[in-house]
Amino acid sequence: MSLSKVYRLLEPGPVVLLSATAGGRTSIMTMSWQTPMEFEPPLVGCVISNRNYTYGLVKKSRECVINIPTVELATKVVRCGNTSGRATDKFEKLGFTPVTASLVAAPLIDECFANLECKVVDTRMVSRYGFFVLEVVKAWIDPARKDPRTLHHMGRGRFMVAGETIRLPSKKA
Amino acid sequence: MSLSKVYRLLEPGPVVLLSATAGGRTSIMTMSWQTPMEFEPPLVGCVISNRNYTYGLVKKSRECVINIPTVELATKVVRCGNTSGRATDKFEKLGFTPVTASLVAAPLIDECFANLECKVVDTRMVSRYGFFVLEVVKAWIDPARKDPRTLHHMGRGRFMVAGETIRLPSKKA
Repeated sequence: MSLSKVYRLLEPGPVVLLSATAGGRTSIMTMSWQTPMEFEPPLVGCVISNRNYTYGLVKKSRECVINIPTVELATKVVRCGNTSGRATDKFEKLGFTPVTASLVAAPLIDECFANLECKVVDTRMVSRYGFFVLEVVKAWIDPARKDPRTLHHMGRGRFMVAGETIRLPSKKA
Repeated sequence: MSLSKVYRLLEPGPVVLLSATAGGRTSIMTMSWQTPMEFEPPLVGCVISNRNYTYGLVKKSRECVINIPTVELATKVVRCGNTSGRATDKFEKLGFTPVTASLVAAPLIDECFANLECKVVDTRMVSRYGFFVLEVVKAWIDPARKDPRTLHHMGRGRFMVAGETIRLPSKKA
């Protein structure tokens, strides 16, 4: 998909699955603390706690993939958040299918309807907040999935599932 | 409401209305690019474009209020985003009721179901990305509003309206 439209996937605030690879290890984490920061090239700011195994993989490789799941994957999304990748291959454990990415070493998660290949471009706020600025360098979306019902975390395993879509006259992006 | 629960309001990714006051001027802007950054004290990172009149008010006063609207206010939310506060009093124009805040000069918007009084605590990324780190110092929520149907912007005036809520067993916050 066009990089100029990437913000539209993240602006509604879905839970995402972040996949990363470094030193022969690959893992996945559940993430909800992210925001678009620029339209094009698309930048995304996200908080990755250093308690997550994936934190070290992103920090070392300076790459990752943001995968966007829908409600059909809700149980796996929560299991992913409840499991550490330190001793477990999460792709195998959760039954996710890794797909080779185009521009980064981390794999895409095939079961997700959208996948954003990212490079880390700013680490100034990592030590203080775990806040990484990512540039999306390649974006994939399944064109067959109309109105994907994304998950939106409300804390402690409660999720809002994306409801109806309304359109109002806007002059802005 | 307890400050420790503030992240639960913002993590699902709702559109918010940011109100700010400086030098005798008050304005409101529609914002969607924000994320929680810490549980407690609650920190919020947000992108405010310097093309918004409100940008100058936040930069000068180092304070603002994040107000969270629901679908009943959708038309006003879009009109707020389509209007500049430079020449217009947006509270008057949009028919919003200002309420005096407790710890900041900016007013709360009475029609919103939650209001978060914020102080700017980190401006390192403002010049490059318009990215402010805010600390929520006081949080208000209308306890009568069960399952508020928040708005989630998908670009160009398309909004997803919060749907059903599901609960899954989670070990995490």
